[in-house]
Amino acid sequence: MEREHISASFDSELAALRKSILAMGGKVELMIAGSVKSLGDRDSVLADSIIAMDREVNGLEVAIDEKCLQLLALRQPAARDLRFITLALKIVTDLERIGDQCTSVAKRVRELNEEPPLKPYIDIPRMAHWTEVMVKEALDAFVHGDVDLAIKVCTDDQVVDDLNVQIQRELLTFMIEDPTTITRAIKLNYISKCLERIADHATNIAEMVIFMVKGKDIRHTSP
Amino acid sequence: MEREHISASFDSELAALRKSILAMGGKVELMIAGSVKSLGDRDSVLADSIIAMDREVNGLEVAIDEKCLQLLALRQPAARDLRFITLALKIVTDLERIGDQCTSVAKRVRELNEEPPLKPYIDIPRMAHWTEVMVKEALDAFVHGDVDLAIKVCTDDQVVDDLNVQIQRELLTFMIEDPTTITRAIKLNYISKCLERIADHATNIAEMVIFMVKGKDIRHTSP
Repeated sequence: MEREHISASFDSELAALRKSILAMGGKVELMIAGSVKSLGDRDSVLADSIIAMDREVNGLEVAIDEKCLQLLALRQPAARDLRFITLALKIVTDLERIGDQCTSVAKRVRELNEEPPLKPYIDIPRMAHWTEVMVKEALDAFVHGDVDLAIKVCTDDQVVDDLNVQIQRELLTFMIEDPTTITRAIKLNYISKCLERIADHATNIAEMVIFMVKGKDIRHTSP
Repeated sequence: MEREHISASFDSELAALRKSILAMGGKVELMIAGSVKSLGDRDSVLADSIIAMDREVNGLEVAIDEKCLQLLALRQPAARDLRFITLALKIVTDLERIGDQCTSVAKRVRELNEEPPLKPYIDIPRMAHWTEVMVKEALDAFVHGDVDLAIKVCTDDQVVDDLNVQIQRELLTFMIEDPTTITRAIKLNYISKCLERIADHATNIAEMVIFMVKGKDIRHTSP
């Protein structure tokens, strides 16, 4: 009876951990969408609010880290639960760094909003949308142990990489044709690379999920 | 007696874990130095060998991860040891990503070696040297629980950030004055940013070490 009680309580603690990670993910998804919206709308106030959100995300990382350590120390989980908790420790670090990338985007947006727009932004919002979905799906894959969804995230990474290459090429053309565009083009290039790095974090999470579920490492098997 | 035996063996397992992490760090330091040397020497064969080393580093990450999980499952460590092992899990991820950055540098070097050199490289090797020392010191701080050394790493990060800004400015001047330099300048800019990211990984490790030792989170206290 006592044992069952402990076990039921452990399950609810794990459920709470899952929920916290999804909540942190939700916040980070808002940061991705908001930082790129602040670019399209030339809205520096929104950019400021994204930068402010980073502190909340940082706080969530610390809190989830501590919760994981507590569970490891007091519950001494084995096998599947152990893998889940240690993976949670790694995932929150990725989420926190996605928040950092969004902050970097928002800072560049504030600078870009001081100058005339270089061009209408079409590909960058598209790229942001992909990365946002990738982060969401990577976390869903984590909490549900859904390998198929994790594999989809890894595949989607190629789309974001291709968009990044396309954006870089287009900006290069601007720079070569008109050197007065160079500083703005470099900032947009930087934003595009931040989004690409966010997609990389989502892919890292997805690869770790596949490892967690299958016990097989696909992280480093590509030639 | 039995208990002492277990404890002595646990200590030696922890010592082995420390040693593996330092070995992985040593390999990554070689990758940093080698990737930038391949730039200065215009040595694409060296660049290829750096790219090949990435697989070894990836393998070390997987092996150390597994070792940490084993220690958590079989030894059920508490307090300080628990913090050490969970931190090891996070640190190897940073080391692995430093390896990825070196691979990116080496790939850009191969491309740059196909074209005439843009300028003599002085600041990039200097930056690489700083980042290499930072990685080494962050890992030393980790295995010895040395807070002062970890703080030094965090301070040194500013030097690398400043060098990165300086390099970016110089490259911008090249691009504006002569648009035929743009593609090469963008690649050098990319290399400089890779080095800056390596320094960020070292700083992340150092901040986590301070947290491990002091039980206090300095990671996110800056305004």
